[in-house]
Amino acid sequence: MISEAVENILLKNADCFLVSDEKVAHVMDENPLTHALLMLTQVKYTRIPVLNREGHIVGLIGLSNIVNQMFDLAEIDPSNLEGLLVKDVMETEVPIITDPFDVEDILHKLVDHPFLAVVDEYNCFTGIVTRREILKSVNHLVHEIDLENH
Amino acid sequence: MISEAVENILLKNADCFLVSDEKVAHVMDENPLTHALLMLTQVKYTRIPVLNREGHIVGLIGLSNIVNQMFDLAEIDPSNLEGLLVKDVMETEVPIITDPFDVEDILHKLVDHPFLAVVDEYNCFTGIVTRREILKSVNHLVHEIDLENH
Repeated sequence: MISEAVENILLKNADCFLVSDEKVAHVMDENPLTHALLMLTQVKYTRIPVLNREGHIVGLIGLSNIVNQMFDLAEIDPSNLEGLLVKDVMETEVPIITDPFDVEDILHKLVDHPFLAVVDEYNCFTGIVTRREILKSVNHLVHEIDLENH
Repeated sequence: MISEAVENILLKNADCFLVSDEKVAHVMDENPLTHALLMLTQVKYTRIPVLNREGHIVGLIGLSNIVNQMFDLAEIDPSNLEGLLVKDVMETEVPIITDPFDVEDILHKLVDHPFLAVVDEYNCFTGIVTRREILKSVNHLVHEIDLENH
């Protein structure tokens, strides 16, 4: 358990924690892998969410998943991607949290994951919470603690 | 300024902050790009340090830098990599800190960079400090603050 005081400081900017789905690049599970490759070269994230037609998050995909698929022994052959869909190479282990946030849970999960997917009560993808956004609040916290102690 | 108390808690595990150079994959600036590509498919980091012969860090390279180079309009052509070296496509803006650490500086810089390169007094690369390691200490901090307040 963390105290209410600490939780409140960390949650002060909770509105900013969530990088909303409109701002997060994603691909569909039935998209051709070549589409995902193009997409991933244009975004700053290493891995992006994979959604199904219902708007549920079903996986994550990154350049490494696709480049691995192109390798033929030590040679790289883009024709290996032909016919493959995003769902054929995506990672299916996705760290998920629900809004409203539990800060303690977020802090723990972000140790092992660069970002967490956020879903609503219908299990639909609404955005992500990143290490970057939480670190902004931590910067705020370490200063705030001192002000309160003085 | 952050207080000594907060700084001490965050620094309690400072020995663990540094992921030492032996554990960090890197490439040399004169390596062929195809070598970096192979390397990057085998590590969990998105970007890895690029060192010169003197052991100084001169850049960062990730899969996206290399895949971009392979694209010919919308087609992907691995032969575009022929003759290219790591230094031809690496990013040269590298966030660097020196050991001993200034925690406040680290917390600020990690908002915008997933990891910071650490150099010694001879400007030689000694390892990296990651968001992951700092978040471990933050988890510790938020619990410790409460213990001290009780």
